[in-house]
Amino acid sequence: MGRGGHGARPSRADTAIGEPAVGRTADGSRARGATIDGPGGGNDDGRGHGGRRGGRELGRVPVARDVLPHPGSGPSRRARRGPGRGELEGDGPARGGPPGDRRRAPGRGGGPPARARRVGPSCAGPAGRRSIRRACLNDGSRAEVVGVGEAGTFLYFRPWYRRSPYFEETQKAGCRSYELYNHMYLPGYYTSFEDEYWHLVEHVCLWDVAVERCLEITGPDAHRFTNLLTCRDLDRCAVGQAKYAPIIAPDGGILNDPVLLRLGENHYWLALADSDALLYAKGVQAFAGLDVEVTEADAWPVQVQGPKSRDVMRALFGERIDGIRYYWTLQTDLDGIPVVISRTGWTGELGYEIVVPALHHRTLWFELREAGAGHGLRPIGDRALDSLRLEKGYGIWSREYRQDVTPGMAGLDRYVAFDKGPFIGREAALRERETGTDARLVLLEVDAADADASPDDGVWLGERLVGSVTSGGFGHHVGKSLALAYLETGLARPEQELTVAILGEERRARVLPEPPYDPSGSRLREPDP
Amino acid sequence: MGRGGHGARPSRADTAIGEPAVGRTADGSRARGATIDGPGGGNDDGRGHGGRRGGRELGRVPVARDVLPHPGSGPSRRARRGPGRGELEGDGPARGGPPGDRRRAPGRGGGPPARARRVGPSCAGPAGRRSIRRACLNDGSRAEVVGVGEAGTFLYFRPWYRRSPYFEETQKAGCRSYELYNHMYLPGYYTSFEDEYWHLVEHVCLWDVAVERCLEITGPDAHRFTNLLTCRDLDRCAVGQAKYAPIIAPDGGILNDPVLLRLGENHYWLALADSDALLYAKGVQAFAGLDVEVTEADAWPVQVQGPKSRDVMRALFGERIDGIRYYWTLQTDLDGIPVVISRTGWTGELGYEIVVPALHHRTLWFELREAGAGHGLRPIGDRALDSLRLEKGYGIWSREYRQDVTPGMAGLDRYVAFDKGPFIGREAALRERETGTDARLVLLEVDAADADASPDDGVWLGERLVGSVTSGGFGHHVGKSLALAYLETGLARPEQELTVAILGEERRARVLPEPPYDPSGSRLREPDP
Repeated sequence: MGRGGHGARPSRADTAIGEPAVGRTADGSRARGATIDGPGGGNDDGRGHGGRRGGRELGRVPVARDVLPHPGSGPSRRARRGPGRGELEGDGPARGGPPGDRRRAPGRGGGPPARARRVGPSCAGPAGRRSIRRACLNDGSRAEVVGVGEAGTFLYFRPWYRRSPYFEETQKAGCRSYELYNHMYLPGYYTSFEDEYWHLVEHVCLWDVAVERCLEITGPDAHRFTNLLTCRDLDRCAVGQAKYAPIIAPDGGILNDPVLLRLGENHYWLALADSDALLYAKGVQAFAGLDVEVTEADAWPVQVQGPKSRDVMRALFGERIDGIRYYWTLQTDLDGIPVVISRTGWTGELGYEIVVPALHHRTLWFELREAGAGHGLRPIGDRALDSLRLEKGYGIWSREYRQDVTPGMAGLDRYVAFDKGPFIGREAALRERETGTDARLVLLEVDAADADASPDDGVWLGERLVGSVTSGGFGHHVGKSLALAYLETGLARPEQELTVAILGEERRARVLPEPPYDPSGSRLREPDP
Repeated sequence: MGRGGHGARPSRADTAIGEPAVGRTADGSRARGATIDGPGGGNDDGRGHGGRRGGRELGRVPVARDVLPHPGSGPSRRARRGPGRGELEGDGPARGGPPGDRRRAPGRGGGPPARARRVGPSCAGPAGRRSIRRACLNDGSRAEVVGVGEAGTFLYFRPWYRRSPYFEETQKAGCRSYELYNHMYLPGYYTSFEDEYWHLVEHVCLWDVAVERCLEITGPDAHRFTNLLTCRDLDRCAVGQAKYAPIIAPDGGILNDPVLLRLGENHYWLALADSDALLYAKGVQAFAGLDVEVTEADAWPVQVQGPKSRDVMRALFGERIDGIRYYWTLQTDLDGIPVVISRTGWTGELGYEIVVPALHHRTLWFELREAGAGHGLRPIGDRALDSLRLEKGYGIWSREYRQDVTPGMAGLDRYVAFDKGPFIGREAALRERETGTDARLVLLEVDAADADASPDDGVWLGERLVGSVTSGGFGHHVGKSLALAYLETGLARPEQELTVAILGEERRARVLPEPPYDPSGSRLREPDP
């Protein structure tokens, strides 16, 4: 199983780097593109422009559909002028924003409250770590600076949001904030975003990713059906193997990007990102004429991730663990409890996912805590992954991967097995291969120390708007502000210099040739026992 | 358009009462069943037991899938003993809960924190209104009693949650809490749940229901395709008409229950409840062999609801409004802005929905506020509807209607046009019509003054567990505690006496023969101009 949180979902990268096609072009040659090497980027295969996406004409620069255009509206009236920042007079008129606002990408408009001014001195922590305040700022939360009201809201625990089987334990462990993902609560953080980041890359963490709701496909035609559902070639997926397996709609848009486990000849689990792809599969089932059952599995994953994860896993499961290769699985038991272990994750570090039926979640959690105590195992939340995934260039569903984005745009075309035979979305993917796309996903390093880029911040080449940010954040390990953005294909080349407008002020940016942290994925693969 | 919030979604009821089939059995005779008359209940057509649901054997009593079984685990350790309440020793052992806990329905187990003790004197407000404290208690929020930590969490405004085009206005208007619905923020409340309840039933309210993401189906085969997608008979839906149109999976489970607007011969909008039924439609499209486009419409609804809603609508749109019959629509304009108005809602009161493209949301919102100022128009949130919908017996998707529940169980079989020709889920529905179901949805009046039933509280007949609560709350207008529950079909008859275990204490309950508030739907239909 492979995916986790929002800004933190397991697997993509693992596959990206771990699988044969990853970082390579469709013909298997090493990609030397303008864009990043991880799954968040794409292979610049030099296909021209003029592509289509989602059945509609491709706009120059895709703008997130969740930020709605209301032209002329300025930034939130709560915005403040920050020292040394561009003009951003928060109390300006509701229509016709201040000058600084011109630097927003079209489609942004009013909407989200403007971000915080720079506060206090830069007080870097040990080992170049950011102070909490700055980490918060750069992690995109503004609670400490502009007040809680602007940073978020109170979310009642209403009965229609599902609770992870581990929910109660995350509460006891002091989880301070939850997000919602696949209609379930996903732990956000326990101590601080940055603490948890460092604990993960240096030690080992436990992460409740039960939100990866598991679509189960069984029945005599399960293999054929699943092979129609994803663009990956499942004839090349052995029983016991795992695959990062994007799901593409008939119109070519990305519907979900699960990690798939093949548990048997005709038995698949797909650990879903945050869209109801189970419903999609049921829709396909309606007229596919295949004999399958499509259900939600009683399968609830947690992740054990970090360089010491193998030690924890060995302590609990013994040497069985050593045989699990990267992106393979082990079906075993824990004192009689059926367990599926996969060497997948989404952290960019060595790691495992462990799946049990709900009835046994409590045993697993306690056993893991016990086995991990001597190794410093700590629960973490999704927020730490916001930073990790940008350093690895991992996109996430709902930001980089969306229904209005195609594999070609998102750099996921390396996962499209064009010649494997029929699959849903193949015609659209073939058309796109012919025509190319107007925009490509790239990873940017941004020259910004005090606030990171936000989604839909404009990317500029001189006076020309050439792209739009999808995610921004601070890479704690590399000590740099990073952003994923869709950019005109012609500019999606390494070292391309650009600017990003953050809070209305231009910041220099450049396209990174590869993810700045462990681009070869050595931490995922090594040390092998 | 017809649906709104979570515990507050527009339409179902409207259709339920407003449409020909509502409250009647399949052959058109008036249902005289044991269960409630609204859409939350069902016709007791005396079909025996032994039915199947979701392709699997029907369990005795459906238990929400979001509450996972971990037998033996007690209630949260934070639970407290309340004066006059049953045993609920919160600091009991983690396994093997306290005696009072035996009254929980199986499948509940640990999970959610136990609810609050009774605090303070009963201090009813004017006109029999509850004090804020008691209203909070009975609305299921425990913030004031057991601390914010147990009642909910802080939700950061992360970029992957979509904002309604009206979001900024709801912020300015002082919205205090949001929920998430179809990946978007839904206003929870502005002042208090109860204030907003009374304002709605006595005056007029404005409600941002942009979360009703609008699935648009167009193309030469749009009518045929949409008629496959829903169990309603769309050959009997004229252009300009609206229908409450459940979507049933191949296995017979409920996937969504949208309100459908037929805007043209081959042009449909489906305003969705909280599941990605757009993905389902794209899945169906894959092999249906029909020429359609399936997209999300640029269509953003708000609701104007309450007895004075027609006055507000007239002030803005003039006498055009008078011609809109219940569950019909008007395509018109507002100073050149294209507008679709439907006489739908989910409040049980006279009301309208107004839909505009995102670009024009600001104009609509301001014009409505201005037109409504003289009539006391106020924005409200979803929480007020928690009470309203129980008084009307309206179920909601994710609680009463779920993938593991069939139309027959939920009382939605009256909407199944068995003989209209092919549609998805027809075979499963026909099987169910033959075999009947083991459980039916009923509306209960519960003898509880200080805390209402919670989802998965057990329903008992003497010492026998015979059902499970799906939703509980206080009906402010009728001054009673109410609950929707799945109950053994044989007991789903009017006036059946039962008990419900609330916080481990038995409370007397009885099956209501009809919704206690305006069962004929006169407030929805009258006064006609």
